[in-house]
Amino acid sequence: MFTACGVRRVFRTSFKNSRFSRKLFGMTVNFQAPKGTRDFYPSDMAVRRFIEDIWRKVSIRHGFQEVDGPTFESLDLYRVKSGDEIVSQLFAFTDRGERELALRPEFTPTLARMVAQKAAGLPRPIKWFSIPRCYRAEQPQKGRLREFIQWNVDFIGDASDRADRECIAVCVDALMECGLTAADIHIGWNHRELLTQALTSTFVAPDRVSNAYYILDRLQKYDFAARKALYQEQHCTPGECEHFETIASAGTSPEVLTTWMNSWPVAVTDAIKTFEKRLADSGLAEICRFDLSVVRGLAYYTGFVFEVVDAQGQNRAIAGGGRYDKLIEMFGGPAMPAVGFGMGDVVLEILLRERNRLPANLMPPADVFVINALEDATISDQLVARLRRSQWNADHSAITRPGLNVQTSYRSTRNIGKLLQEASGCGARVALILAPEEVSRGMIKLKNLTDRTEAEIAIADVPDRVHGMLKP
Amino acid sequence: MFTACGVRRVFRTSFKNSRFSRKLFGMTVNFQAPKGTRDFYPSDMAVRRFIEDIWRKVSIRHGFQEVDGPTFESLDLYRVKSGDEIVSQLFAFTDRGERELALRPEFTPTLARMVAQKAAGLPRPIKWFSIPRCYRAEQPQKGRLREFIQWNVDFIGDASDRADRECIAVCVDALMECGLTAADIHIGWNHRELLTQALTSTFVAPDRVSNAYYILDRLQKYDFAARKALYQEQHCTPGECEHFETIASAGTSPEVLTTWMNSWPVAVTDAIKTFEKRLADSGLAEICRFDLSVVRGLAYYTGFVFEVVDAQGQNRAIAGGGRYDKLIEMFGGPAMPAVGFGMGDVVLEILLRERNRLPANLMPPADVFVINALEDATISDQLVARLRRSQWNADHSAITRPGLNVQTSYRSTRNIGKLLQEASGCGARVALILAPEEVSRGMIKLKNLTDRTEAEIAIADVPDRVHGMLKP
Repeated sequence: MFTACGVRRVFRTSFKNSRFSRKLFGMTVNFQAPKGTRDFYPSDMAVRRFIEDIWRKVSIRHGFQEVDGPTFESLDLYRVKSGDEIVSQLFAFTDRGERELALRPEFTPTLARMVAQKAAGLPRPIKWFSIPRCYRAEQPQKGRLREFIQWNVDFIGDASDRADRECIAVCVDALMECGLTAADIHIGWNHRELLTQALTSTFVAPDRVSNAYYILDRLQKYDFAARKALYQEQHCTPGECEHFETIASAGTSPEVLTTWMNSWPVAVTDAIKTFEKRLADSGLAEICRFDLSVVRGLAYYTGFVFEVVDAQGQNRAIAGGGRYDKLIEMFGGPAMPAVGFGMGDVVLEILLRERNRLPANLMPPADVFVINALEDATISDQLVARLRRSQWNADHSAITRPGLNVQTSYRSTRNIGKLLQEASGCGARVALILAPEEVSRGMIKLKNLTDRTEAEIAIADVPDRVHGMLKP
Repeated sequence: MFTACGVRRVFRTSFKNSRFSRKLFGMTVNFQAPKGTRDFYPSDMAVRRFIEDIWRKVSIRHGFQEVDGPTFESLDLYRVKSGDEIVSQLFAFTDRGERELALRPEFTPTLARMVAQKAAGLPRPIKWFSIPRCYRAEQPQKGRLREFIQWNVDFIGDASDRADRECIAVCVDALMECGLTAADIHIGWNHRELLTQALTSTFVAPDRVSNAYYILDRLQKYDFAARKALYQEQHCTPGECEHFETIASAGTSPEVLTTWMNSWPVAVTDAIKTFEKRLADSGLAEICRFDLSVVRGLAYYTGFVFEVVDAQGQNRAIAGGGRYDKLIEMFGGPAMPAVGFGMGDVVLEILLRERNRLPANLMPPADVFVINALEDATISDQLVARLRRSQWNADHSAITRPGLNVQTSYRSTRNIGKLLQEASGCGARVALILAPEEVSRGMIKLKNLTDRTEAEIAIADVPDRVHGMLKP
């Protein structure tokens, strides 16, 4: 009934005569990228590389090591963490062995599985990052695609706020490296355990905590009418409604909120102050603020949570994460405290474009441009091939001269002026000009495109001279 | 009948009581990576980065630009190129809109679609590379996994052998850059158009050419008995059998083969000699040889074809490609000549490991290691955070001092000797030692781990001094 790859034959046959299948069997169709996915042409890919390279570089200098897992996992893996309701948001399929699989909607389950599987053998703490492509079968909209790239950073095996702060630091450093400033983004943080203590010691009954979280998550986004409906839906008592309205008014009357917060247990406010002090020590005070409305939807967060938002754009979320001390255990590993966050490429790219922060030219510049003004291409082809290739020592154990980025023209013109323009266009620092008169004497013209100086050198000397000129 | 994500509800329910589904609903399962896929722990990822970075770097210096497409495409896209039989080798699924999709088994259909879609606006020639993950629903075996990474290089819009040679050159350069030598690999090349002329002008009837290709593809791999069965299966005439046996004997009696090749049309042998000469001009003569048995299975190749094989390992294929001048048209684009090849990561990694060509330490070394011998971590944390972060100029338009790779210990020990060992272990060039006596005077010990010299400097001077020491 099911074919090897999990597509029902009956299904394919039954659609044979529909509009979809006419498209299918005609051969002159204009195919498009599937809905919610992207084609990356060179200029798109350059932006993706710019972002991914910064994520990678910054992760590494903060001491995180790169990992990755399969693009698809057992469907079970997602059910364990998120329950059956997750299934409708996944791209799921079966393999030949009728195993249920799904394209990863996020990396955390894979991470938890990988840590659980090798927990005993891994040096602690585990500081990992990954840059997986992830997939969600949801309606595409601005900032949300069906296929996206997500930077994941996780610090596992350290229960202290040092790990929390390192996560914030690497996140902020990467955003700054992309060209954003403290005026572009801010980070709201909260602490679910402390917040629970504060809520239960003031106005929320212990069995109403999850309702309170649900409400806090929405309070800032809803107007009065929507909040009223929300309180009703969550069966709030009049006392609860009053308190939530106080919290909702924080934007216009912060003093009312302060009064409420002053009634919190001293241990809670002290813990918050200590964390604020430590953020300041790490140089993060300016960008971070304690924010009651940041509770994060996912149930697995156990303590500290944070969200990076666009400071100018209706609180659009750029990244988010928090502490998930129970998750590794849930996947069969030992009890291990953990904290981490994720950042998608789609919203970040939109933000960088809106703020005009992408560098003007993201294409890697050429080192050398070879201009051939001869009838025949043999010498030119040889030179290009030779300069591009790395030179090795005799036993091929080390590169003695790395290959260069060498470009040349594929146009038929032999007009040196036009070809020099092409050379400048691809950012070359050196042009090598093969012209009949010089070549007849075994010579070539070498032009330094930075200072516009020229020299005539023997063709055989080209590699030495060019490498000498390009040395930093 | 179909749920949003394309998994039939009936299917899930019917398996509820099987062994598989018991696994599904229990919570203490040890999850594994799906069959035929890989987990990339840091040391595995370092190898993948080593390979991918070389592919990328070498592609760019040969003038190719990076592109990518969606991980999945319309199932039709693969049917157009490869017919219905491809479907059983794909991971296919449907989305909410009941569109049939499949994980990409290769990149070429995406490439052809992308070129066809924007053909008018793209500067020619198109020199593109990509490093996609690809997926095949086949039985995993050594060197063949269900999920792999494939380097694709394509040169589109140039019908000349210059494009063919550029493809071979970038392929060879990347393999050399990985540490392989001309003794490790060789490249067999052929030309389907020339071969067809040679075959039809000697012993193959025009309507028997595809049978001849089928046989040539297998000749070197089969023993006498298998060849006999092959001739029978392909309904060979006695004359054909005799000729194929001559070709099969090339390894032991090349002179018989030479006699046959001497009877080829002069235009064909001349074209082969010309191409050989041009390969020599590009410095590729040593590694390349004309090889009749290289015909490449895929029907879309139209001319030049080549295969990179392990010179010591039973002709294990490392890469392969050729000219496909009709493919862009097939996807609705204009007529555009094209040549390209693919190289997978799985076989390459096996080869590099077997030949012991992977560098000993692939982890990026640290710049600085901060040793904290104080009770409190505040100063240490500040220093680490500060050095990791890039410093910008006043208007945040340029980085004035790039962030450094700064590591520190998460162990509780304050034993400086042990911590210095940890510093050396991560390749740090500078150690900064925070000890009570020095810090009480606002000073810190700076140790150059390369020449083992030490200096005492003011904590405030650390960034300047460290950056000065690390300058290349």
